[in-house]
Amino acid sequence: MTDIHAILVDWGTSNLRLWAVSATGAVLSERRSDKGMSKLTPDAFAPVLNTLITEIGAPEATPVLMCGMVGAAQGWQEAPYLSAPTKLDSLSEAVIPVLGQNRDIRIIPGIAQKTDIAPDVMRGEETLLLGLNQADGQIVMPGTHSKWVQMQAGSLAQFQTVMTGELFHLIETQSILSKTLANTDWDDADFITAAQNAYQNPGNILTNLFSLRAAPLLFGETALKGGRAKLSGWLIGAEIASCYKPKNGAITLLSDGNLAALYDAAFTALNIPFTRTDASQAAQRGLIQIASDIWPSHQ
Amino acid sequence: MTDIHAILVDWGTSNLRLWAVSATGAVLSERRSDKGMSKLTPDAFAPVLNTLITEIGAPEATPVLMCGMVGAAQGWQEAPYLSAPTKLDSLSEAVIPVLGQNRDIRIIPGIAQKTDIAPDVMRGEETLLLGLNQADGQIVMPGTHSKWVQMQAGSLAQFQTVMTGELFHLIETQSILSKTLANTDWDDADFITAAQNAYQNPGNILTNLFSLRAAPLLFGETALKGGRAKLSGWLIGAEIASCYKPKNGAITLLSDGNLAALYDAAFTALNIPFTRTDASQAAQRGLIQIASDIWPSHQ
Repeated sequence: MTDIHAILVDWGTSNLRLWAVSATGAVLSERRSDKGMSKLTPDAFAPVLNTLITEIGAPEATPVLMCGMVGAAQGWQEAPYLSAPTKLDSLSEAVIPVLGQNRDIRIIPGIAQKTDIAPDVMRGEETLLLGLNQADGQIVMPGTHSKWVQMQAGSLAQFQTVMTGELFHLIETQSILSKTLANTDWDDADFITAAQNAYQNPGNILTNLFSLRAAPLLFGETALKGGRAKLSGWLIGAEIASCYKPKNGAITLLSDGNLAALYDAAFTALNIPFTRTDASQAAQRGLIQIASDIWPSHQ
Repeated sequence: MTDIHAILVDWGTSNLRLWAVSATGAVLSERRSDKGMSKLTPDAFAPVLNTLITEIGAPEATPVLMCGMVGAAQGWQEAPYLSAPTKLDSLSEAVIPVLGQNRDIRIIPGIAQKTDIAPDVMRGEETLLLGLNQADGQIVMPGTHSKWVQMQAGSLAQFQTVMTGELFHLIETQSILSKTLANTDWDDADFITAAQNAYQNPGNILTNLFSLRAAPLLFGETALKGGRAKLSGWLIGAEIASCYKPKNGAITLLSDGNLAALYDAAFTALNIPFTRTDASQAAQRGLIQIASDIWPSHQ
């Protein structure tokens, strides 16, 4: 493995993904870990990274480029935000080194929207957006904290974070509904109907919720066959109603796995035009592009 | 204390209140306890009740009338629901005895709305409504699970439960916002502005939330002075937007304490006509009325 040119890491709140790439940007090796930022103190990042690099067998001098929550104030080392609106090719110039390490390790900054009305922040998504390389239009990245982004003439113009996934998890596991929801299966038709209802009446989320408790009390456990799907549909339908701007054209759904399938189904049912792109690939491409800017392969 | 005619108990999920009343309905003594239904197994209710009755010094034969979650399936003994729409004076006839006790103990049933579209249940609020004695109009009882009730020609016509208080508590204590919210004071002006915004755009709750995290990250901790008040205002404003029906006239706010003050302030700021009535008094009056129906004082 002497042809490893750089190590690339997407280090998020819950997980991290690491790739070893060649000078031409080919992925030579991949590692995943659940040692996300939220589980680490600042001095625990270096050992986690070194263990993964040793497993891969990369030379000691191989440089490392990282994006995501690793650069948050509570991460390994803070990488100050760029301010939106911003061109994404400014990211390469704003990369900061992690100090006091035996190898060249750098962190890509996040992007902040420093307005009084809609203050917002992202870390990691900016690198996916660079890898997506889309100059205009609206992009959604579903997740614990979904991001809705408006690109305009090659700039990230504005964005919004929606705590959809976190609210789903809180209600599913911590609320009075948790016991009944734990007994329910997934039901695609219930998801679609709930997403359609919430898209039409996004203000009804609060009033819909308690029916998930009352229905099984009154009609028996089987009445709640698709309870989790309903909850998910209500939240995702309300998110789309709040964030989708029809006048701004088709949505790019930048996601993979189960969430990509859910938002795909919701957009389809709501007759919202969209295209779907793999998020993991976009992360790789964004990291590779910045790595090739800061460590040109002719070195 | 030989003139105690009955013991009345409002036994809820979190707390209970107990009153000893005379044959004319005068309150002779009061006790409160945090031994709510959620903290008790079925065989733990009798000892809690007996301890409180002994403290008060009521004769052994004094009968006991109870409302609230004590009559839930997971309470002391289930009191099957009446079905809405229903006259509230049907409650006296539907009271059920607790079996196998040394004294006469009875539980007032809750009320269920057995529809597919809006299944819902209440336990305890029906007794407050009886004590309120209001034949028509919309009534709100704010709480962990707020109840919005439509009375019509003396009948409870329909009702809706909103998990406003529970969502506030979950987001305040369990979400990614909890750390920043813990550092905020209350701010009345922020509460009012948030309630007004949410009333106009109830679908924006999901998208508003994350600003409570981003603002202190970008502008420092002082940026979030009224964070808890904002969260409360958004939730209460959205609840009112979903539930208030202007064509049905003024709202009766049946509540006391801090929640009564919050909803009072929100209705005032939103120019919604309302009158305010004490909930604890209504509970007493409802219990006294049913007790006098089932144990007439001439006995």
